[in-house]
Amino acid sequence: MTAFLSDRVLLENDTAAALFEGTAKALPIYDYHCHLSPRMIYEDASYDNIGQLWLEGDHYKWRLMRAEGIDEALITGDASWKDKFFAFASAVPRMAGSPIYHWAHMELKACFGITTPINSRTAPSIWEETSRKMADGSFCARKLIHRFGVEAICTTDDPADTLIYHQKLKDEGFDVKVRPTFRPDAAACGVQREDFAEYVKKIGAVSGRETDSFDGWISALQQRMTFFGEVGCNMSDLSLGKIPEESGTFEQARQAFDLAMQGTCPNDRQADAYLDYMLRFFAREYQKRGWVMQLHLSAIRNNNKRLFAVTGPDSGLDSVGPAISVVSLSRLLNAIEEEGGLPKTIVYTLNPTAYYEIASMIGNFQGKSPNHLMLGAAWWFCDHLDGIKEQLRITANTGLLGRFTGMLTDSRSFTSYARHEYFRRILCSVVGEWVEQGLYDPQEAPKLIEDICINNAREYFGN
Amino acid sequence: MTAFLSDRVLLENDTAAALFEGTAKALPIYDYHCHLSPRMIYEDASYDNIGQLWLEGDHYKWRLMRAEGIDEALITGDASWKDKFFAFASAVPRMAGSPIYHWAHMELKACFGITTPINSRTAPSIWEETSRKMADGSFCARKLIHRFGVEAICTTDDPADTLIYHQKLKDEGFDVKVRPTFRPDAAACGVQREDFAEYVKKIGAVSGRETDSFDGWISALQQRMTFFGEVGCNMSDLSLGKIPEESGTFEQARQAFDLAMQGTCPNDRQADAYLDYMLRFFAREYQKRGWVMQLHLSAIRNNNKRLFAVTGPDSGLDSVGPAISVVSLSRLLNAIEEEGGLPKTIVYTLNPTAYYEIASMIGNFQGKSPNHLMLGAAWWFCDHLDGIKEQLRITANTGLLGRFTGMLTDSRSFTSYARHEYFRRILCSVVGEWVEQGLYDPQEAPKLIEDICINNAREYFGN
Amino acid sequence: MTAFLSDRVLLENDTAAALFEGTAKALPIYDYHCHLSPRMIYEDASYDNIGQLWLEGDHYKWRLMRAEGIDEALITGDASWKDKFFAFASAVPRMAGSPIYHWAHMELKACFGITTPINSRTAPSIWEETSRKMADGSFCARKLIHRFGVEAICTTDDPADTLIYHQKLKDEGFDVKVRPTFRPDAAACGVQREDFAEYVKKIGAVSGRETDSFDGWISALQQRMTFFGEVGCNMSDLSLGKIPEESGTFEQARQAFDLAMQGTCPNDRQADAYLDYMLRFFAREYQKRGWVMQLHLSAIRNNNKRLFAVTGPDSGLDSVGPAISVVSLSRLLNAIEEEGGLPKTIVYTLNPTAYYEIASMIGNFQGKSPNHLMLGAAWWFCDHLDGIKEQLRITANTGLLGRFTGMLTDSRSFTSYARHEYFRRILCSVVGEWVEQGLYDPQEAPKLIEDICINNAREYFGN
Repeated sequence: MTAFLSDRVLLENDTAAALFEGTAKALPIYDYHCHLSPRMIYEDASYDNIGQLWLEGDHYKWRLMRAEGIDEALITGDASWKDKFFAFASAVPRMAGSPIYHWAHMELKACFGITTPINSRTAPSIWEETSRKMADGSFCARKLIHRFGVEAICTTDDPADTLIYHQKLKDEGFDVKVRPTFRPDAAACGVQREDFAEYVKKIGAVSGRETDSFDGWISALQQRMTFFGEVGCNMSDLSLGKIPEESGTFEQARQAFDLAMQGTCPNDRQADAYLDYMLRFFAREYQKRGWVMQLHLSAIRNNNKRLFAVTGPDSGLDSVGPAISVVSLSRLLNAIEEEGGLPKTIVYTLNPTAYYEIASMIGNFQGKSPNHLMLGAAWWFCDHLDGIKEQLRITANTGLLGRFTGMLTDSRSFTSYARHEYFRRILCSVVGEWVEQGLYDPQEAPKLIEDICINNAREYFGN
Repeated sequence: MTAFLSDRVLLENDTAAALFEGTAKALPIYDYHCHLSPRMIYEDASYDNIGQLWLEGDHYKWRLMRAEGIDEALITGDASWKDKFFAFASAVPRMAGSPIYHWAHMELKACFGITTPINSRTAPSIWEETSRKMADGSFCARKLIHRFGVEAICTTDDPADTLIYHQKLKDEGFDVKVRPTFRPDAAACGVQREDFAEYVKKIGAVSGRETDSFDGWISALQQRMTFFGEVGCNMSDLSLGKIPEESGTFEQARQAFDLAMQGTCPNDRQADAYLDYMLRFFAREYQKRGWVMQLHLSAIRNNNKRLFAVTGPDSGLDSVGPAISVVSLSRLLNAIEEEGGLPKTIVYTLNPTAYYEIASMIGNFQGKSPNHLMLGAAWWFCDHLDGIKEQLRITANTGLLGRFTGMLTDSRSFTSYARHEYFRRILCSVVGEWVEQGLYDPQEAPKLIEDICINNAREYFGN
Repeated sequence: MTAFLSDRVLLENDTAAALFEGTAKALPIYDYHCHLSPRMIYEDASYDNIGQLWLEGDHYKWRLMRAEGIDEALITGDASWKDKFFAFASAVPRMAGSPIYHWAHMELKACFGITTPINSRTAPSIWEETSRKMADGSFCARKLIHRFGVEAICTTDDPADTLIYHQKLKDEGFDVKVRPTFRPDAAACGVQREDFAEYVKKIGAVSGRETDSFDGWISALQQRMTFFGEVGCNMSDLSLGKIPEESGTFEQARQAFDLAMQGTCPNDRQADAYLDYMLRFFAREYQKRGWVMQLHLSAIRNNNKRLFAVTGPDSGLDSVGPAISVVSLSRLLNAIEEEGGLPKTIVYTLNPTAYYEIASMIGNFQGKSPNHLMLGAAWWFCDHLDGIKEQLRITANTGLLGRFTGMLTDSRSFTSYARHEYFRRILCSVVGEWVEQGLYDPQEAPKLIEDICINNAREYFGN
């Protein structure tokens, strides 16, 4: 029996405890995918209350508060941070087994040394104690980054971004690597969106290229990649609901682009052809530049139209979409492999039913470098005790767990780094179980843990 | 090592044992979805042998007997109840790990105090001992309902039903709530069935409305809902193989209805439009009336045509169908939300691969009341040790387990109430494991268990 | 804590240990599906080094070596067996949790008595010790078959095969049953392949029938089945990517055949009709002959075209394809049942998300004999600790585990028989857990284990 939130929490066997305490605990963090604001890092944004710290942008928490029937005013509305925190706290005991329950308590312990369970009765004292501890300005971006031992942060950035804060951080010589990630969702997937032409012009302006023609558009995007590379970028990302069934040609992509620029929405077939062409175009560019390509698959966004009109994007209205077609993935990977060679590629799926299909498919294209293709870490709705174990075990069952690059936060919050501890404890439990079953060499276990926690990421994403 | 069927059975840790013995065990049962016969309750139907008690209508058992290669005569045929019981008993040792194995033994213990394993050797003594104990008429509907501490029973009823036995039970003042559930499968999904026009006329007759026109049909269904409400109904149910991709208009629904009434089978597109319109019509009505809407998704029925011709519906020829399209579910929930607002809604899936998609999708539409939308309990082919754990853990991972309304029997048998004990033991094991891992506040655990076992159902379905 | 690879490995509880040591361990092996070469058995092919023994044809290992970034020369290329073994050994510590890790070490222990963990440091001594032990010719096909206690081997054979080595083994009176399995993939699924007409002629030649007409083709295939039966065959197999949605008629199948024979590739609809007709034709034949029908579903093959051009088929470029449509499966099983009755049928799925759909669907068609239809054992990408447990538990949850025929190797290697020990340990752990939870009669457990390990296979496939 482990006491609530004790040091043994989540460590399911003695080997796990030894691996965590002896190896995993003190290792630095390489956060290779997140949504932190480089501006907030540069300006060292700070918080003075736990309500804002936890509830300003955390749609995971908002969803559970809505499930409790809490009024939207206390979630994304005008209520005070204190009232919002109290409303959240009132729902916490209902969150048994939820990653939000786990993370909130682990953050409370890691950042404030508080191990009291959160609920309506404890909310006042937690509010007061945290406010007191935050009063000295210690809850600012940089101190939190240092406190958690972060050595690298890869943010997520639109090609239109000027990367001014990345540049400033570089110029300043901030002792943590902060690198942009090139995420061309609007460029690759947006050809049917009303604001596409406007977006193309924006890229034209920032790149100094003429983007009226498809050739110019391609050239402008190349300029953005070159620029991103100059500021330190060596990774890309893309969120995709589906992978097109058929290949799209340059000519088809150009036609869809021209239609969109003339104000006519391309039909689904045309948009698919455009998307496929752009996926292959970007992959060729990443391969040439030595970048890592990340694909985040199967999210469906902004489902509740009534609430979306009030709260907008990224407010907890997204969910797990259909598993992508692995036949289409095979077609796409082949096309990329034949046209210019596959860059290092990480495929994340939000739908766990696709794990076996994707994990075994990428295994067909391995060979160029260690884990040249990799099944992405458990993500978003899957980023919890059960989901992390599932992703680790499926990685092990179908590939090389020892080459996995481990955890990322995918977060907008500076206290989410506690999730690395969460992941590491679970990782140690999984490996520890194998050791205790006589299924893995105990001599190799510490190195395996260290590789997954930090070494592999350094090797894969650059030191 | 727990002795066979001992009091510790299924309680996987000490906290689970304490939670079950101290909290869960004695709580009353709120069976919010079942297929019990109100007539049998009213008439206090009784059994005098375990063959009939277990094998008269239990297609779960029939399926396993067929898998053993037992002749159909001993399953649904003319053989005696004794011979049928002996045939069943002979197959039981092969049922290792099956919920049928678990339930049969738990019912034997709960109803007869017998803890002998069932097999060919023990069948004679079990037959004799149970027959002796049943000889005094104690195995009648009402005594069993009382023995298991049932406080509410929600049956499943066709809109054409006169609810005469519900009315009689109400008039009589039976001390257990017995309420009808409005289940318009034939009305919503039957427009392509040969007997649709006949069914429409039947509803016309019982409602006293003219149903030749679509308007009259709608009005007749409204009359049935009003009538059901008067007899105590506050819930609905529907079994759906799929959710239509596109919205259906009133005009399309009217056309499909008119075709069917003229003896022409609407095509698939027309039937889909009709179905979608009816789904939204019913949802509007439920919302107005404050009813709970239940959707049971992904069953495919009557697969074996050869045997179906002999044994008919509900005889063990149904199975797990394709996962529904979550994109269609999003469309439908949005349409309902925009047209009249979502009623309380429970979405059950028979296909467990849809859990993450559905659980995360309903999370997009929360807010109006606690667990306004809810992932339904593990159902039918998923209603076993592994399936119950999976549903509980996914509920916890994606929403508020603390608001879950827990177990229902979905059964035709009065001894199936033993399944509540089965569920509660598993629930206590899941929560107990979290407590023992230091992942949940031990102080809150008893209330959490009590809420899931009884309080939430009372609040959600009415006291 | 179990020592690495000790006798207690994989036995997760004391009951499991007792069941394995007391029952499972010593039972003979009935390998009812594999890809061993009858010629190698007849000629008693032997190995003198572990590099060739392990790496000559094992695409499971090749895939992991590619994932490690090892050069293809050291995988399928010209490098020496020693260099290949050293390359493999260097990657082994990364394979934590992989079945390849488990199998390699279990084979090393079972065949050589070596329990050293494999890695770069231990590779030289393992190479030397194994070479020394292999030097006396003891690593030949027949000695390995005897050493592992194999009593029956069912190979996989094309209808065009002359079965000469099966005949020779029969004539010789080899004391292990070696039987062919009729696998008409090219005949049933190949109508769109360029070499189809050539294949048809080959069957014509070997069968002594005229195959220019569809009638002649059917007759030639019947001749092959009769011939296979004479040499001892009583099973068939087929690998299917999908099951056609619609029934195909004789006339449609004939047309597709005629097109293909004239050098015109039938379109997808025509090919589907041909496939469906052939599936039903073969099923009728199997039923008449009392053969078992095996269907292996959802593999997609030869995905990486660049590497396929170099390494060819069966070189690690296959993966898990989409789950088949269970609605199509229902249609097909019904058609077979109505046309001639279902033969004994085993349905394997490479995509584990289809387990519930398939397992519950086959339950609709049971009745003729024990486990007349059966969910196939965990296969290929699912054949590991987690996957075997999942298949066992789903079998138990949806059917009769006690009638399951257990493990097969599906292998091309004579040392893969160690996988039976792997499976048996896991089986004992699963059943042992139920016994220790008080959920299964401890008296029945040894018989259950024995049945699944050997008795059921003897009864199902013939003694």
